[in-house]
Amino acid sequence: SVMFDEIHEECGVFGAYRVDNAASITYYGLHSLQHRGQEASGIAVSDGENITLQKGKGLTVDVFQKEKLDSMVGRLAVGHVRYSTAGGQENENIQPIVSKGHNGSLAIVHNGQIVNEKELRIELENEGAIFQGTSDSEIILHLIQKQKGTLKERVMKTANRIEGAFSFLVMNEDTIYAVRDRHGLRPLSYAKSKDGYVISSETCAFEVMGIYESVDLKPGEIVEFHKGIVKHEFYSTDTDHHMCAMEYIYFARPDSVVEGINVHAFRKATGSILAREDKDLKADIVIGVPDSSLSAAIGYAEEAGIPFETGLVKNRYVGRTFIQPTQAMRDRSVRLKLSPVSSVVKGKSIVMIDDSIVRGTTSRRIVQLLKDAGATQVHVRIASPVITSPCFYGVDTSTKDQLIGARMSVEELREYICADSLRFMTEEEMKEATHGVGLCLACFNGEYCTKLFSYQEELDK
Amino acid sequence: SVMFDEIHEECGVFGAYRVDNAASITYYGLHSLQHRGQEASGIAVSDGENITLQKGKGLTVDVFQKEKLDSMVGRLAVGHVRYSTAGGQENENIQPIVSKGHNGSLAIVHNGQIVNEKELRIELENEGAIFQGTSDSEIILHLIQKQKGTLKERVMKTANRIEGAFSFLVMNEDTIYAVRDRHGLRPLSYAKSKDGYVISSETCAFEVMGIYESVDLKPGEIVEFHKGIVKHEFYSTDTDHHMCAMEYIYFARPDSVVEGINVHAFRKATGSILAREDKDLKADIVIGVPDSSLSAAIGYAEEAGIPFETGLVKNRYVGRTFIQPTQAMRDRSVRLKLSPVSSVVKGKSIVMIDDSIVRGTTSRRIVQLLKDAGATQVHVRIASPVITSPCFYGVDTSTKDQLIGARMSVEELREYICADSLRFMTEEEMKEATHGVGLCLACFNGEYCTKLFSYQEELDK
Amino acid sequence: SVMFDEIHEECGVFGAYRVDNAASITYYGLHSLQHRGQEASGIAVSDGENITLQKGKGLTVDVFQKEKLDSMVGRLAVGHVRYSTAGGQENENIQPIVSKGHNGSLAIVHNGQIVNEKELRIELENEGAIFQGTSDSEIILHLIQKQKGTLKERVMKTANRIEGAFSFLVMNEDTIYAVRDRHGLRPLSYAKSKDGYVISSETCAFEVMGIYESVDLKPGEIVEFHKGIVKHEFYSTDTDHHMCAMEYIYFARPDSVVEGINVHAFRKATGSILAREDKDLKADIVIGVPDSSLSAAIGYAEEAGIPFETGLVKNRYVGRTFIQPTQAMRDRSVRLKLSPVSSVVKGKSIVMIDDSIVRGTTSRRIVQLLKDAGATQVHVRIASPVITSPCFYGVDTSTKDQLIGARMSVEELREYICADSLRFMTEEEMKEATHGVGLCLACFNGEYCTKLFSYQEELDK
Amino acid sequence: SVMFDEIHEECGVFGAYRVDNAASITYYGLHSLQHRGQEASGIAVSDGENITLQKGKGLTVDVFQKEKLDSMVGRLAVGHVRYSTAGGQENENIQPIVSKGHNGSLAIVHNGQIVNEKELRIELENEGAIFQGTSDSEIILHLIQKQKGTLKERVMKTANRIEGAFSFLVMNEDTIYAVRDRHGLRPLSYAKSKDGYVISSETCAFEVMGIYESVDLKPGEIVEFHKGIVKHEFYSTDTDHHMCAMEYIYFARPDSVVEGINVHAFRKATGSILAREDKDLKADIVIGVPDSSLSAAIGYAEEAGIPFETGLVKNRYVGRTFIQPTQAMRDRSVRLKLSPVSSVVKGKSIVMIDDSIVRGTTSRRIVQLLKDAGATQVHVRIASPVITSPCFYGVDTSTKDQLIGARMSVEELREYICADSLRFMTEEEMKEATHGVGLCLACFNGEYCTKLFSYQEELDK
Ligand SMILES: Nc1ncnc2c1ncn2[C@@H]1O[C@H](COP(=O)(O)OP(=O)(O)O)[C@@H](O)[C@H]1O
Ligand SMILES: Nc1ncnc2c1ncn2[C@@H]1O[C@H](COP(=O)(O)OP(=O)(O)O)[C@@H](O)[C@H]1O
Ligand SMILES: Nc1ncnc2c1ncn2[C@@H]1O[C@H](COP(=O)(O)OP(=O)(O)O)[C@@H](O)[C@H]1O
Ligand SMILES: Nc1ncnc2c1ncn2[C@@H]1O[C@H](COP(=O)(O)OP(=O)(O)O)[C@@H](O)[C@H]1O
Ligand code: SF4
Ligand code: SF4
Ligand code: SF4
Ligand code: SF4
Ligand SMILES: [Mg+2]
Ligand SMILES: [Mg+2]
Ligand SMILES: [Mg+2]
Ligand SMILES: [Mg+2]
Repeated sequence: SVMFDEIHEECGVFGAYRVDNAASITYYGLHSLQHRGQEASGIAVSDGENITLQKGKGLTVDVFQKEKLDSMVGRLAVGHVRYSTAGGQENENIQPIVSKGHNGSLAIVHNGQIVNEKELRIELENEGAIFQGTSDSEIILHLIQKQKGTLKERVMKTANRIEGAFSFLVMNEDTIYAVRDRHGLRPLSYAKSKDGYVISSETCAFEVMGIYESVDLKPGEIVEFHKGIVKHEFYSTDTDHHMCAMEYIYFARPDSVVEGINVHAFRKATGSILAREDKDLKADIVIGVPDSSLSAAIGYAEEAGIPFETGLVKNRYVGRTFIQPTQAMRDRSVRLKLSPVSSVVKGKSIVMIDDSIVRGTTSRRIVQLLKDAGATQVHVRIASPVITSPCFYGVDTSTKDQLIGARMSVEELREYICADSLRFMTEEEMKEATHGVGLCLACFNGEYCTKLFSYQEELDK
Repeated sequence: SVMFDEIHEECGVFGAYRVDNAASITYYGLHSLQHRGQEASGIAVSDGENITLQKGKGLTVDVFQKEKLDSMVGRLAVGHVRYSTAGGQENENIQPIVSKGHNGSLAIVHNGQIVNEKELRIELENEGAIFQGTSDSEIILHLIQKQKGTLKERVMKTANRIEGAFSFLVMNEDTIYAVRDRHGLRPLSYAKSKDGYVISSETCAFEVMGIYESVDLKPGEIVEFHKGIVKHEFYSTDTDHHMCAMEYIYFARPDSVVEGINVHAFRKATGSILAREDKDLKADIVIGVPDSSLSAAIGYAEEAGIPFETGLVKNRYVGRTFIQPTQAMRDRSVRLKLSPVSSVVKGKSIVMIDDSIVRGTTSRRIVQLLKDAGATQVHVRIASPVITSPCFYGVDTSTKDQLIGARMSVEELREYICADSLRFMTEEEMKEATHGVGLCLACFNGEYCTKLFSYQEELDK
Repeated sequence: SVMFDEIHEECGVFGAYRVDNAASITYYGLHSLQHRGQEASGIAVSDGENITLQKGKGLTVDVFQKEKLDSMVGRLAVGHVRYSTAGGQENENIQPIVSKGHNGSLAIVHNGQIVNEKELRIELENEGAIFQGTSDSEIILHLIQKQKGTLKERVMKTANRIEGAFSFLVMNEDTIYAVRDRHGLRPLSYAKSKDGYVISSETCAFEVMGIYESVDLKPGEIVEFHKGIVKHEFYSTDTDHHMCAMEYIYFARPDSVVEGINVHAFRKATGSILAREDKDLKADIVIGVPDSSLSAAIGYAEEAGIPFETGLVKNRYVGRTFIQPTQAMRDRSVRLKLSPVSSVVKGKSIVMIDDSIVRGTTSRRIVQLLKDAGATQVHVRIASPVITSPCFYGVDTSTKDQLIGARMSVEELREYICADSLRFMTEEEMKEATHGVGLCLACFNGEYCTKLFSYQEELDK
Repeated sequence: SVMFDEIHEECGVFGAYRVDNAASITYYGLHSLQHRGQEASGIAVSDGENITLQKGKGLTVDVFQKEKLDSMVGRLAVGHVRYSTAGGQENENIQPIVSKGHNGSLAIVHNGQIVNEKELRIELENEGAIFQGTSDSEIILHLIQKQKGTLKERVMKTANRIEGAFSFLVMNEDTIYAVRDRHGLRPLSYAKSKDGYVISSETCAFEVMGIYESVDLKPGEIVEFHKGIVKHEFYSTDTDHHMCAMEYIYFARPDSVVEGINVHAFRKATGSILAREDKDLKADIVIGVPDSSLSAAIGYAEEAGIPFETGLVKNRYVGRTFIQPTQAMRDRSVRLKLSPVSSVVKGKSIVMIDDSIVRGTTSRRIVQLLKDAGATQVHVRIASPVITSPCFYGVDTSTKDQLIGARMSVEELREYICADSLRFMTEEEMKEATHGVGLCLACFNGEYCTKLFSYQEELDK
């Protein structure tokens, strides 16, 4: 919902290798990854000889009706769910993107953002390439097509040409390659299923199939699924480890395990850590902003020994087609999504946990809502550091000038959102909660782990 | 979702009297009541001279696009959201139902179930009435039309002719009547808004408008909104108080206040009570089946001093159009809706709270899911008594032979769902949690507060 | 298309009795009657025990998809296509209208207009009836329900209570009644099919089934299809014969036979007659305004010995969703529907035949179009008399003040449409073309064959 | 309609240069070209800086709703209507195809078929190109992108690389190029509008705008619309003139002028010529198969002095979604589209004109239909020669083995279709009717005016 959401992940990918009804399995997998993108959905399936493609705008369950899925026969598939940023809602950008050549087809699905995208695009165009859309996937396809050698060699060369955050799958008629960037910015895992293998952006998709064990790709790794065999290789040795912290803080589903750490457990830990520093704060109840901040709130409550309460209810039918409220409604629009439980909050001093603050407007409205409903004090605790810099790795956190944390001190911010007190986590505390997993924290500290190419300018403005 | 849900409420009603953009306000109101019915939605609006009607299948936000809503000018409105049972999905049954007469129109929306429906239908047909659908609303309209006197008198006579559970609104060009059955089976409240009045099945709809105070209709009461004035009257003095317990246990939104009791608070209390009786139970964590049982689980955890955990995650994109899983998937279909958080439950002894058990299949699958994910023990606690009898008051809890609690002892049931222990609440404990609000508990104890007319047979089979 | 059409018929009815796949046969029948109404379509089918109803907005081929039709099992069916006037586009008015009673259902489809509708509506409401829509069918259903006796007796009594133009079908689980008004204003015929009987507003629907022989109902007749037997009876002996002349002139399909006269043949004859009076007119070519006036133009050309040419082409993709042209386009909007063939008309003196003139704007634009394309002279001949009065028998020819023929003399009209000459037919010539079939010519001469009840006022204004 | 049509044209193109509301004008233009393709429609518009693209399946009037069109601001546009053959219904093939480059975008629309498509595709892929669809437009775009020089030079070089039938438009932000193949196989014209220029596959699109004069591109010509100026140039001097005869015979709208000859006039002339050779044939009436053969029938009737009659009526609501008739209906399926007017044909000896015979099944059914309806004799005259060879220039006339004229003598064919006599035109007579316009007649005589490349094999089978 354009009206409320402040951070957006751009994609989720899923693959199925030598699995019966691969399209159907991919459908269920994408359904589990739907929180990573609700605007469009697509599946390409291979029956060993041909690749069939179906895609469209909307949720996976709406794009794929029974007959459509039944018509997609084959044991290999790749699928994609997508959140599209303002400028890129065209059909041309819905994934998978498939190229149809005289000696075979290739399907690609991609999660992330390539930072040297503009440079590559110019280079490719100068060499005769044409682009019908603006997705990174088209660039990856072009690069693969241009290289020499076997498909694996071409994919590996391609992975070395692109810089930034990416986890992508390439499928031809009988093989799938899974590739993860050399900084490990975006997650990608695979697992053994009864009859073959499944690959996913998040592990929560495996549990739909009753699979509880999975393998994470390492930074710089390519995994080949070919002739029934899984082969790991590194396309680059120049690797480091910068898993996007925001995956833990906001995007990933609580039941996913990212780099060995369960997301819910991570969030609970952040809550505990926040509580640890609040020894002297006396409050009646702890509440979280649903759904992303409930785990942290539970963690805080447990550590602080203050009751965890359901002080806010989220309307589960908030959707894309929501009609803009009339002027009179406008400034209370947050109500359409969140309702205070007045019998819970009335007369109470509250610790309210949220995951992050981007533009600040939502936080301000929620505090207002709680006070209107009778809360006497609202102490806001944010389960992450202050966001000060834009992300160029596939997360739409707005431009620098929209980031309130880049313009205001914490005290100014507290005043702006009308909280009785406000506190964020430090970067060190973040690392404590991940038990040392290498993290990207660029949007908190401006330390980008890659060159930024043409985006550097944007940043410098 | 046909696949999973076991209990269904059949409706929610909303009204707006002398309110600017009444259709728009009703749209927001229905959006807040959407959990009471997702199959169809409708609004009738009066501009003082004419009544305009729009309705269709689907969520309120999908049925009403901007232009449609904009075209509905007027300051009075009634609206409806509907869950339709198998036999009644025809368009003829979508509410409001409007009759267009030479001296004015009437619009009606209704929540509940009339138990002497069949008898009234036959009587009315014999007198020349024709019915285009099967909804109770059509019967109410016919009865009103047949009576003599002012509209208010006709509505009151009608309310005395129908028996069962009902909360309905009748609107003509300039007046709205709100009527609640004389047993108080279904909730109905109204509140003062800035410029007029709003009426709703649940109070959560008022908070969208920033209204935190409301008045419940009493059993047997009719409230007239006319010439800007609100008048309370009783159409019957033969009243009693049997608020549907299931509203507290399952249907109502946690932020609603039903008969003065907040739903979330009620649910927390049931959790506490359950924990009180479990003094000797040692367990590592407490989990709830989301979303309906989370409040009770929090209450249990607090009382028992055992950590509350997120052991199950519910997929928020489960919708009506979901494709039936293939055979291989079938018996694990619950996974499409619920995922165990294996890192939370693995190796743990768990107390799992659910709100109720209807056919038992879902509970059985959830226990299995948790054990597959590594739980060592699963102790199931149900925040309500054993369901043993069908409901004839507007709730679709299946027929008697489908109710597992009618066929098995608690121990047999425990074995069936593979739980390590199983316990339900008693009726007395229920009453404790509602602090003495008069309750219908017929589906738990078979004591119906009305004659059942033709349904008696169905029960006796 | 709202932009162009000036006359609208309001309905077509079709029935199938003891015919395999009755719904499917009705679908084909309605497809052949589609020119009588394109806004909505519906079918009710009986399997001997239950009546199933499906209806919706749009063309028959769009409303009924394969699965829908397949689900409609039974050997009896009635169907309807509808043109809805401005005020009556609600779903409630789409036919068939079905009443569901405790001892059986009734489905009704109706073509025509009841002139004592308002009086009956008031009477019925006073006796307790409620109306959900504004269609005449609902009145007919109520009247049938109120009468005493067998269904046949009730239908006959009903036919005697209603006055005006009507051809309707009533179906219960195992019988169909076909009824035609006592003035014979609207056509209705039936035919023997291989396995049963089919009933239709126009005979063109029979030919889809390879049936070339049919029987017309007589004014005042009711035909019963029951137990495999067809029984004719008169519900009234007070009959006369006033078949709507407009059916011949404009509505009916050229391949239909109305009261023994083929429509195309009738139209050709009007052309001949027009030519007969034009002995001295020298012109290069004869053209007709497609499609309705092509037959008459052919007849004229043949009689006059002047070549018949295709001087105007009609765009066959003009539909309901057409976007209003921009201002610059507005006054040339007729071009979106009709194109002059400039190589045919350039430098030519033309006789242009049209079927009728209602508001005059279209004629004026067409003459302009032809002159722009190079025609030197345009002599307009209208294959019917001057329309001077509104129709109250089911045809939407606009109100009196919109009828240009009611306000202007033929010479003024000629000048208004910029024709070089203009001539209409006389009433006597009309009768000559129908070989004496009793005709309603009320819209030409104001002589209505029934009392007009409340419409009298409207006329007197 | 898959069930009936035997010949399909694959496209229509339209362009607007420096015209206010170019998208809107293109919408009206495409509406006039809709008969050339009903499966998909698209428009790309340039506002001088950016190119916006909208496309989708369905008729132009359905794909483009008001808001969509309003959002397409700009004074240059190109548009396309498309008939898609079985294998190419994917969204990737809907035109325009737009490439988005770092120094500008290109939009292309194309009508025709490139015969060296396969060879070019392989060559381009070997050089690194990727193809997302199977349309010729993508090849043209790739070729343009690969060439060196100004855009005009690149377009001209491209036109020299492709062989076959083509008329295409290329638009960048401020220029449009219109290109016609060097054999003149497909038509392409442009005209001066009030404020700019419009370009169209057929001249009928100009008349919607009140434009009666236009210029045809010559074979091998490229026309540049740039800086308000129109420049003609030849990209090749190796030209000849082979306008597709089928455009005259079947595809083009009767009001279009193709190479200076009006289509209706051409068709009338073929009818006259056919009659000239039938001096001794005595028949009662002449009829045409609507709509394509009505002009020829009028011509025949005039020449022969036999009355032209409406012996067949075409159902104007036959559409794409038509449900397959049941078995019993199957062999009479032609009835759903065509009805005999039995009162016209009964007892008559008939000359029936059709435009062409492809597979023969439709002709056979129509003759049967007329005889069932009472015709005593049916003399079939075909207003073109016998089709014996497949078309590789953009017309889908089926493969050689489906062409009945390739397998049977005229006498065998007469017997197959049960006609009393059957005659075709000769090639010389065709040329007589076009007054010497250079014609492609390859599907009649197998003389292809280009090399066929990979299609030669297909032909040789
Ligand atoms: N099925 C699910 N169940 C619970 N949480 C989920 C589910 N899907 C996504 N999430 C969580 O929802 C959060 C984002 O949603 P939420 O906070 O409700 O919305 P918003 O975008 O308004 O902040 C993420 O933290 C993600 O972990
Ligand atoms: N917006 C909401 N936020 C939280 N809970 C809600 C909301 N709407 C409805 N509910 C609660 O959801 C419960 C029913 O949903 P849930 O338990 O998730 O589904 P199920 O029907 O599968 O049991 C009810 O208890 C109701 O109180
Ligand atoms: N399938 C058909 N074929 C030929 N004529 C038809 C068909 N269906 C309806 N008609 C004729 O079309 C006429 C109405 O259409 P037309 O004149 O084209 O449209 P308009 O409403 O613009 O005058 C009627 O005269 C009717 O007889
Ligand atoms: N708007 C129109 N008016 C008249 N003729 C048209 C129109 N559009 C296309 N045509 C003609 O229709 C013919 C094709 O349609 P028709 O013969 O009716 O269908 P079929 O494809 O069944 O043969 C072409 O000859 C074309 O010239
Ligand atoms: S900058 Fe922030 S959002 Fe972007 S990848 Fe790094 S941690 Fe994630
Ligand atoms: S029987 Fe049960 S579900 Fe029905 S009204 Fe009573 S408590 Fe509610
Ligand atoms: S008034 Fe005219 S249109 Fe109406 S029924 Fe009579 S002839 Fe027909
Ligand atoms: S082969 Fe036939 S259809 Fe094809 S271009 Fe030549 S004349 Fe036209
Ligand atoms: Mg959140
Ligand atoms: Mg639940
Ligand atoms: Mg007409
Ligand atoms: Mg044809």
